[in-house]
Amino acid sequence: MFEKRLEEFEALFYPKSIAVVGVSTEERKVGSVWVRGLLSANFKGNVYPVGSGGGTIAGSKIFPSLRSIPGEIDYVVVCIPRRSVLELLDDCALKKVKFVHFFTAGFSEIGDAEGYELERDVVIKARRNGIRIIGPNCIGAYCSESRFPCGPAPTARIGLDGSVGFISQSGGLADKLVEIGIARGIGFSKGVSFGNGADLDAADFLQYLAADPKTKIIAAYFEGTRDGRRLFDSMKMVASVKPLVAWKGGKTEAGAEAAMSHTGSLISSAAIWSTMLKQAGAIEVNSLEELADVVLLFQKVRNWQGIGVAIVGGLCGGGGGISVSAGDACSEEGLNIPALSKATRQELVNILGRVGSIVRNPVDISQGYGQPSILRKVVEVIVADANVQLVIVQEDADILLKYGSPQISDAMNDTLIDLASKCSKPVVVVVPPGSSEMERLKIENRLSQASIPVFPTMERAAKAIARVNQYFRFH
Amino acid sequence: MFEKRLEEFEALFYPKSIAVVGVSTEERKVGSVWVRGLLSANFKGNVYPVGSGGGTIAGSKIFPSLRSIPGEIDYVVVCIPRRSVLELLDDCALKKVKFVHFFTAGFSEIGDAEGYELERDVVIKARRNGIRIIGPNCIGAYCSESRFPCGPAPTARIGLDGSVGFISQSGGLADKLVEIGIARGIGFSKGVSFGNGADLDAADFLQYLAADPKTKIIAAYFEGTRDGRRLFDSMKMVASVKPLVAWKGGKTEAGAEAAMSHTGSLISSAAIWSTMLKQAGAIEVNSLEELADVVLLFQKVRNWQGIGVAIVGGLCGGGGGISVSAGDACSEEGLNIPALSKATRQELVNILGRVGSIVRNPVDISQGYGQPSILRKVVEVIVADANVQLVIVQEDADILLKYGSPQISDAMNDTLIDLASKCSKPVVVVVPPGSSEMERLKIENRLSQASIPVFPTMERAAKAIARVNQYFRFH
Repeated sequence: MFEKRLEEFEALFYPKSIAVVGVSTEERKVGSVWVRGLLSANFKGNVYPVGSGGGTIAGSKIFPSLRSIPGEIDYVVVCIPRRSVLELLDDCALKKVKFVHFFTAGFSEIGDAEGYELERDVVIKARRNGIRIIGPNCIGAYCSESRFPCGPAPTARIGLDGSVGFISQSGGLADKLVEIGIARGIGFSKGVSFGNGADLDAADFLQYLAADPKTKIIAAYFEGTRDGRRLFDSMKMVASVKPLVAWKGGKTEAGAEAAMSHTGSLISSAAIWSTMLKQAGAIEVNSLEELADVVLLFQKVRNWQGIGVAIVGGLCGGGGGISVSAGDACSEEGLNIPALSKATRQELVNILGRVGSIVRNPVDISQGYGQPSILRKVVEVIVADANVQLVIVQEDADILLKYGSPQISDAMNDTLIDLASKCSKPVVVVVPPGSSEMERLKIENRLSQASIPVFPTMERAAKAIARVNQYFRFH
Repeated sequence: MFEKRLEEFEALFYPKSIAVVGVSTEERKVGSVWVRGLLSANFKGNVYPVGSGGGTIAGSKIFPSLRSIPGEIDYVVVCIPRRSVLELLDDCALKKVKFVHFFTAGFSEIGDAEGYELERDVVIKARRNGIRIIGPNCIGAYCSESRFPCGPAPTARIGLDGSVGFISQSGGLADKLVEIGIARGIGFSKGVSFGNGADLDAADFLQYLAADPKTKIIAAYFEGTRDGRRLFDSMKMVASVKPLVAWKGGKTEAGAEAAMSHTGSLISSAAIWSTMLKQAGAIEVNSLEELADVVLLFQKVRNWQGIGVAIVGGLCGGGGGISVSAGDACSEEGLNIPALSKATRQELVNILGRVGSIVRNPVDISQGYGQPSILRKVVEVIVADANVQLVIVQEDADILLKYGSPQISDAMNDTLIDLASKCSKPVVVVVPPGSSEMERLKIENRLSQASIPVFPTMERAAKAIARVNQYFRFH
C-alpha cells in the first residue's frame, strides 16, 4: 500500500545533499545553526551552506547562491526572510531541487492577506517546477538512519533509532518527542514536522510511513487540515496496517485560536476530529505525554493478550496504599483486574504469609521485604494464572533505597529483567518520581534497554495499556 | 476550634520519650530499624529500645521489658507479633503510656474473626487504661519539628519543615508524600498514618491539624471510616478554617477490595464519598500526584486572584505547539484564557514582532530566542493586563540546553525568580521531563526554593490551579 511514496520521498528522508539557505559566518544565526547541526550529527550526505556574504561556517565554504553549488541538491532548508522566498524558488527550479523545506515563517499563520497570498504563490510556483514544499514554518524532515537531525541545534542529538515514525505540524513538539524518546527509550525510524502543510500535508507523510518498512508504529500530531476527506481516507488505510496514534491539538477554543496563529489551521470541531479519528481506526490521545506513553508501549511490548492485569507492588515494603490506588487507577481506565485463582492465592499465602501482605490482585509483597527471590516466585505464580494477561510491577526508587539499598535495587531489577525476558505475558513497570531521581533514572534506563516499558505513574501506564489494547482487539 | 486537641495530642507529635518494642541486636529487624531511624534523625526526646533478648542496638541499651525502663514513656511503637499485643498493653498501662502505635499488622485487615476480635480487644483494653491507639497496621506519627521521622528507615530523612499537615491511612503513601515533598519543595508541619483507625480515627487527627498553628494546609488520604457522620462533621468544620485536600482510595471495586485487605476498610460508594467531600467543603483529588500538586500550589502561591491565566512559552524557541496544547490543557480543566487587551497585544508586537511568535494568549515568545530581557518585558506587559489573574510560564530544559546553553538557562531562571518575587499575581512554572533531567531537576530546585510552584506538565498545573481556586472562591 502506497509503495510509490517510498521512491517519491526517498530524497526527503535520505537526501544525498542538503543546501541550507540563509547562512552567514555568524555562528548563532539560525541558518548557520542548521549547518552546524547537520555537520555535528554526521549527516550522511553533502551539506552546502548558502549565504550572500560568503566566508565559511564550521569549516565549510558558504556558497553565494544555490546556482553556484556544483553538485545536485535534493533538499533545501530555507532560513531567509519571507520576502525573498519566491526568488529563491527560481534557483531551486534551475537546480532541479526535489524538496524545499521552509523553516522560514510569516505565511498563512500570520493571518493577513500578504501571508496567505505568499503561501499560495509559493505552492503554485513550486508545483509548476516539480518541487515539493515542506512547511512553511516548520523544522522539516528527521531521520536517524541518514543522521538527519530533528531541528536546528548546534550540537544535534540524533535520538534513538527504532520503529516509531511520526508526523507533526509543530516543530517544537516533534523535537520534544525525540528528546522524550532519548530519555524513555523510544526509538524513531523517521519523522517530519510540516507546519502549515501548504503543499505536502499529513496524508502524504502518513502514506509514506505506512509503506516504510522501517516504521512499525506511527505517531501523529495535527492542528488542522485543508482536506479532511483525503486525510480521513489515508488514515483509514494507514491504520489498517500499522498502529496510528493521533493527537489533535487545538480542540478547545483557546487551543484552536493558538493553532490558527501557529500553523494557520482553521478552527474545526473537536467532536468531528474525535469521530474522524475513531472511524479511521486511529488511537486518539490528548497530550504529548500520552502520545509518548502509547508509542513506547507499542514499541516495547510483545505477546499482547488483553487488559486483564495483575498488579504487584511493595517490592521493599509500603505496598498497601499502592495496591489500593493502583486498583483504582487501572479500573478508572477500564482495565480488568481479575481475581486470582484459588490455587494462585494459596501459593501466594505460602510465599508471603497472611500478615502484612495482600495475597489477592493487586498483590502487595511488602512481607518479601526486598528479597528478589520472593519477587521472582510471586511473579512466576501470577503469570501462570490463566486469568492474568499482563503484569504491572510498581517499584519505587525512594522505597528501595530507604528501606533497602542500591544493591537490593539492582538485584530487584536484575530479577525483573530476567522475568520479563522469559515471560509469556507482557510486563510493564511503574517507577514514580520522588526524592531519589538519580536511582529512578538509572532504573528506568536499565529496564528500557531491556525492552521493558516504564511509566512514571500507574494512571499513565493504565491509560497506555487501554489505548494499545484498542489496536490489538482488532489486529 | 478543637483547641483541646492540641494538649491532648502534644505527646503524640512531640513525645518526650518513645519506646520501641520488638528490638533485637539484629540490625535489619524492623524494631531495630525504628530505633536506628529515630537516632539517625536526631529525634528530640529519649528513645528506649525494648526486646526480650537484651544487648544493644546502635549504641543504645535494649531494655528487657517496658516495665524495666526507668523514665516516663509518652509513645510506644509496637513491632512484636500480634499474639503478644494484649499482654504488652498491661505494661503500657502500668507505665501510664499515652499513645501506643501498632506498626504490627494482622488485625481486622486480615478479614478473619481472630483479627477482628483482637483489634476489638486491644481497643477495649486501651480505653479502660486511658491509652490511645494509633493504627494498628501503620507507621504512626511524623513531625519535622520534633525530628520524628516518617516510618522505619535506618537512615531516616526528616523531609522539609513547612505548613502542610497530613493524615493517611496508608503508611506507604504517607512516606512517599514526604519523599515527593523533598523533591518538589513541599514542607510539612506533621503527619500521621493511622492504618485501620481502630481507636483514633481521621476525625481526631483532622481536628488536631485544624487547631495546630503550624499547619496551614491539610492533606488527607482515606480508605474508609467507621463513623461517616463524625468524619463529615469534622471535615466540614476543618475545611471552614483551612484548605482540606482529600483523596479517597478504593473508589473502584478493585481498589475497594484492596482497601479491605489493606486497612480493613468496608466497601462504600465512591459517589457517597465524593458528595460527602464536596458538601464538607473539602477539595477532592484522585491520586498521590494530584494531592502533592494541590498542596504544593497552596503552599507556594500568594496573591490569588482567580483562574484567568496567561500562558507564556517558547523561552528558547519551539513554543508554537506548546501554546496550542497549553491552551487545550488549561481549557479542559476549566481555566479561563482571557484575550489580552489591544494595548497589551500591541506592546507584544513591539517586543516580539509578528513573524515566528504568537502575540496573543497563549503567548509564544520563540522570537525572543533565549533573551532574558525579552522574557522580562513580555511577563511585565502581561501581568499589567487587567484581564490576567495568574501567569503560567512553560520552560523546557531540553530546549534551553539544545538551543541555548546552561548560561542562558540560568539567566532565564534568574529573571523568572526576580519577576515572581515582585509580581502582584501568582506565577506558576511548568518544566516537563525529557532528556536533560539533571538541568530540569536543578531548575525545579532553584524555582522551588524561591517559592515558585513547579509542575511537570501543563495538565497537572491546570488541574491544581482549578482545585486551589475551589477554595479561594469561598475564602
